Amino acid sequence: MGAVGTGGKSVLILMGSDSDYGVMKAAADVLRDFQVGFDARVLSVHRAPDLTLAAASRAREDGYRVIICGAGMAAHLAGAVASKTTLPVIGVPIQSGALHGVDALYSTAQMPPGVPVATVAIDGAKNAGILALQMLSLSDERIAKDLLRMKEKLAGEVLEKDKRLQKELS
Amino acid sequence: MGAVGTGGKSVLILMGSDSDYGVMKAAADVLRDFQVGFDARVLSVHRAPDLTLAAASRAREDGYRVIICGAGMAAHLAGAVASKTTLPVIGVPIQSGALHGVDALYSTAQMPPGVPVATVAIDGAKNAGILALQMLSLSDERIAKDLLRMKEKLAGEVLEKDKRLQKELS
Amino acid sequence: MGAVGTGGKSVLILMGSDSDYGVMKAAADVLRDFQVGFDARVLSVHRAPDLTLAAASRAREDGYRVIICGAGMAAHLAGAVASKTTLPVIGVPIQSGALHGVDALYSTAQMPPGVPVATVAIDGAKNAGILALQMLSLSDERIAKDLLRMKEKLAGEVLEKDKRLQKELS
Amino acid sequence: MGAVGTGGKSVLILMGSDSDYGVMKAAADVLRDFQVGFDARVLSVHRAPDLTLAAASRAREDGYRVIICGAGMAAHLAGAVASKTTLPVIGVPIQSGALHGVDALYSTAQMPPGVPVATVAIDGAKNAGILALQMLSLSDERIAKDLLRMKEKLAGEVLEKDKRLQKELS
Amino acid sequence: MGAVGTGGKSVLILMGSDSDYGVMKAAADVLRDFQVGFDARVLSVHRAPDLTLAAASRAREDGYRVIICGAGMAAHLAGAVASKTTLPVIGVPIQSGALHGVDALYSTAQMPPGVPVATVAIDGAKNAGILALQMLSLSDERIAKDLLRMKEKLAGEVLEKDKRLQKELS
Amino acid sequence: MGAVGTGGKSVLILMGSDSDYGVMKAAADVLRDFQVGFDARVLSVHRAPDLTLAAASRAREDGYRVIICGAGMAAHLAGAVASKTTLPVIGVPIQSGALHGVDALYSTAQMPPGVPVATVAIDGAKNAGILALQMLSLSDERIAKDLLRMKEKLAGEVLEKDKRLQKELS
Amino acid sequence: MGAVGTGGKSVLILMGSDSDYGVMKAAADVLRDFQVGFDARVLSVHRAPDLTLAAASRAREDGYRVIICGAGMAAHLAGAVASKTTLPVIGVPIQSGALHGVDALYSTAQMPPGVPVATVAIDGAKNAGILALQMLSLSDERIAKDLLRMKEKLAGEVLEKDKRLQKELS
Amino acid sequence: MGAVGTGGKSVLILMGSDSDYGVMKAAADVLRDFQVGFDARVLSVHRAPDLTLAAASRAREDGYRVIICGAGMAAHLAGAVASKTTLPVIGVPIQSGALHGVDALYSTAQMPPGVPVATVAIDGAKNAGILALQMLSLSDERIAKDLLRMKEKLAGEVLEKDKRLQKELS
Repeated sequence: MGAVGTGGKSVLILMGSDSDYGVMKAAADVLRDFQVGFDARVLSVHRAPDLTLAAASRAREDGYRVIICGAGMAAHLAGAVASKTTLPVIGVPIQSGALHGVDALYSTAQMPPGVPVATVAIDGAKNAGILALQMLSLSDERIAKDLLRMKEKLAGEVLEKDKRLQKELS
Repeated sequence: MGAVGTGGKSVLILMGSDSDYGVMKAAADVLRDFQVGFDARVLSVHRAPDLTLAAASRAREDGYRVIICGAGMAAHLAGAVASKTTLPVIGVPIQSGALHGVDALYSTAQMPPGVPVATVAIDGAKNAGILALQMLSLSDERIAKDLLRMKEKLAGEVLEKDKRLQKELS
Repeated sequence: MGAVGTGGKSVLILMGSDSDYGVMKAAADVLRDFQVGFDARVLSVHRAPDLTLAAASRAREDGYRVIICGAGMAAHLAGAVASKTTLPVIGVPIQSGALHGVDALYSTAQMPPGVPVATVAIDGAKNAGILALQMLSLSDERIAKDLLRMKEKLAGEVLEKDKRLQKELS
Repeated sequence: MGAVGTGGKSVLILMGSDSDYGVMKAAADVLRDFQVGFDARVLSVHRAPDLTLAAASRAREDGYRVIICGAGMAAHLAGAVASKTTLPVIGVPIQSGALHGVDALYSTAQMPPGVPVATVAIDGAKNAGILALQMLSLSDERIAKDLLRMKEKLAGEVLEKDKRLQKELS
Repeated sequence: MGAVGTGGKSVLILMGSDSDYGVMKAAADVLRDFQVGFDARVLSVHRAPDLTLAAASRAREDGYRVIICGAGMAAHLAGAVASKTTLPVIGVPIQSGALHGVDALYSTAQMPPGVPVATVAIDGAKNAGILALQMLSLSDERIAKDLLRMKEKLAGEVLEKDKRLQKELS
Repeated sequence: MGAVGTGGKSVLILMGSDSDYGVMKAAADVLRDFQVGFDARVLSVHRAPDLTLAAASRAREDGYRVIICGAGMAAHLAGAVASKTTLPVIGVPIQSGALHGVDALYSTAQMPPGVPVATVAIDGAKNAGILALQMLSLSDERIAKDLLRMKEKLAGEVLEKDKRLQKELS
Repeated sequence: MGAVGTGGKSVLILMGSDSDYGVMKAAADVLRDFQVGFDARVLSVHRAPDLTLAAASRAREDGYRVIICGAGMAAHLAGAVASKTTLPVIGVPIQSGALHGVDALYSTAQMPPGVPVATVAIDGAKNAGILALQMLSLSDERIAKDLLRMKEKLAGEVLEKDKRLQKELS
Repeated sequence: MGAVGTGGKSVLILMGSDSDYGVMKAAADVLRDFQVGFDARVLSVHRAPDLTLAAASRAREDGYRVIICGAGMAAHLAGAVASKTTLPVIGVPIQSGALHGVDALYSTAQMPPGVPVATVAIDGAKNAGILALQMLSLSDERIAKDLLRMKEKLAGEVLEKDKRLQKELS
């Protein structure tokens, strides 16, 4: 199935507008940190539906393993992509407009039976990247080990922050 | 453009499941009352995306003038159809699942600039039908007149109900 | 029925205050782009109810084909107008006050059976304009063609944005 | 200004449908208990706008002192009435449809500056009646005294309920 | 009952903190415009409960006719005051804290049967003042006439705003 | 301070109506299980404010150590009690009316600085009882030990349920 | 890593109570349909935290590939499990209590950066199962093919439902 | 049980990040004002679960009497700590991310039966500190007296603010 996490493009990141990249960059960054190849594309299901569905339907044969979709408001991107692929699709509800992302959260998570979207927190692009890595880690020991290291690092950072607080308080 | 309101199929009613017809029937009924032809189809954007988008994209040349879409939860049907047609698309958010239709309302109404959906109330299928008639009435005097009559009838029913209440109270 | 889209005033845009024009301008702009005549009026159902209902009730004979109403908070404007006309009425819930437009969305969309309002997204004035154009396009081939062109342009812009992102990422 | 609370019709109760009388009856009951005359009418601002606004605009000269309006969903009745009278208008948001009265609460309470509606709880028709009595009590000592008695009775009922609970627990 | 609207103190405005006066001032201003006497007091039901309830329970004999209460978050002020008086109590939910006034709206409006609070919009202090005037107008012709004038002025302002918009657009 | 947990009345349970006892009984039950004395009273802050505040203000000298208050809708009981005592006050938002307890949750939890209410889940009366016990356990070793036992029992029940599921599945 | 999808236990399904199995069974059923081995366990993070975290922390070496967690109200189960494993964790918010699953949705989806939970719809256990299968399909061609077949079957069912509707309508 | 309120560390304040100290400082400040010893630690249940649960499980023997936990979004910290101790646990939902603390409020308050968290307002850290003092006051007369003094001071501040307002208005 191709070399995952060693330069191959395992993850496809889709977003409705280049302005969403400010949020979605966090997914790209974490993939880059783990040396996992990805493509990031602007593709709008409402404005360019054919391109979007075509990309989704050939994603598996294009070698992608996971698709991350970021969208705001009536966020249909992840659901539309999920309708055209059997790859796992991760949805990032993006905060925009009057409803602050509640609309995007509901539009992304409340999918009907048969077509799941793995929804993360509003603006939770970093977690979307980590979730993709966890999926890839099922067949890639290197990523599995790096995820463990990241977990330890997260715990270490908590200790660091605690030390800083103790200093501040003493 | 074909004979509207005289037996031709001017309206296309789409819904995600035949079980939605319990709600969507109210749209069909009002169209039938006005002798406006329609087709009602089960078409799920998440489960049968290609069929759905194909139907949407050829709807204008198929002679339809308005499309009504009913869907619940992460209700993407109306938005997906709107992405593939320049006909007006009316969305009926359907109450289902834990969130009682708020998710469907947000998923239907909060469309991004460029791709509008004319959203009616949750489970508001009857109003979807009337809205379709109002659009058709722009080029069909008969429907315009019948709408006026319906408006007068609505006012008359209010008077009837008031009389009933006065009797009950006296 | 008068020349639609060729200088005639086909669309009536109503708003509760001149300060709402900041939002509603997007509807006017898209109509102007399509060379469709419109009038934009400040008319408050709560502060000037008679004027408002009078305008609504003679809108059809005044030659208007579609009415767009923008209002915030307990947004009754679109519903009140819809009670007095058989023309299609489009409601734009405007974000204002503490509830950020959720109140306006509910007040605009949740209309009772018999009196529909075609509700677009909170602050979705541009889509209100496009929806009006879609309705007009039912009897105006020129608008229908222009809408198709706009759709293609929207898809083209997505491609442009994608190119920009690819450049940024490479 | 006529004899208030002695058989004259001081309060006008409006509701959108005779089916709303199940909720609004509680307002009528409390007025009857206080021997305050009232009329209860079915009048829909969306289905019979002219009748409704006419009733509102002549309510003061008809001798009414307070108007109570009950409505559900996009509840515009109280606001529309308030636009046409300087009498105090009390709004009862009625629970109906998918949103359980939140839509009616927002549509009733979130009125723009200049046109107040005195909003009570969802389905709070009894309190609407009491609020009307409190307003009438400003110029009617008898009602003022009866309200005081009702207040004492309410406190007495609490003591009764407490006794019942103590018995149950012992 | 004392001379209402001629210098007497007919209205008692209560608020939980002097910082709330920024919002509540709008109620004071409208009363002043109508030359209706009022007192404005800082009184917190949570921090100074005895003072608050004492003020409420002697408000009627102190000559007040209406009490306006402004409070934020778990806004109990209006309800507590209403528990100790038979005067009409108007509640202004104030926007503060994380929930933007939804908490205050629910805490003010959702009163149990027997103890009504006349709730206006979030931060709707101006309407609270007008509502108080409407109540006072039931026994004060001068206020009734001034309210009518204000209504006409509001309609006039709409016309002014419309003219400004027409100029801007032409 | 009296013998806590050995027959003395350490906890005061207040509720607005005897009908609330259906929910609040769970607090009484857990206290009884721990042999901790309590009184349960019906006391409404809106209908019997003086009695309620008097009970709150002498609760500490009456020997109570913790007060539990259950109330629905605009639930002010816990906050009012907290305004008159320095004892810890636990609030149980009760599900009732159209808003299903969200109003009670906000009215109970969103207290202003200076007057805390320890809020538990909507209808969470059992947890209110346990929380009271945890507070009492700070100076009562017996309760502390029994709480530990209860914790172990809870874990044991999970194991039992797991066994039942394994049987069901095998 | 063991034989996935051929009898091995690839998926661990956790739930807080055996009563949750009514909802979570849909995940088990879809895994069984695909002949993918799973264990289903009752494990409560609040009542049996050590057991739960221990199970999570050794899940990878126990051979599991994906963990599905179902929980209601303040649903912490998925997040707690995710804190102790680098396997992908899928969260199913379960509808229970007064807030109908909105609390569970927020508690499951709104995870902080570093610890993702793949959240599906409220009560969306079937989609949790399919999402797990999609993840497993990344290294199991058989599952990938079966998912494709399921997708085709879903589309076929839509056609069936459409036929039924056409019959009903003709 | 150690000297409470005389320099001993009676209260343990936990927070997920040192950046939360901006909010949680208010709890520390009020404890310091009352000369009650406390420790403030950064400990994340999601990033450092073992450390967190270990700290919780030995908190009682470490001499702490009350634990205060502040967390945002899917705020699991208080619930996780409560699962490992029989000490009373106070939860402060912190406003952060798109949902402004509603997610944290639900995640903190909606705990299942058996494991209570004493939830205060969103960002209500000062009240968390006072609630802890109220609990400690059950076995510490000095704190009980100081709480009474604080209550009187709060009432006095209201009088001060009222005076300031009277000056401003005169």
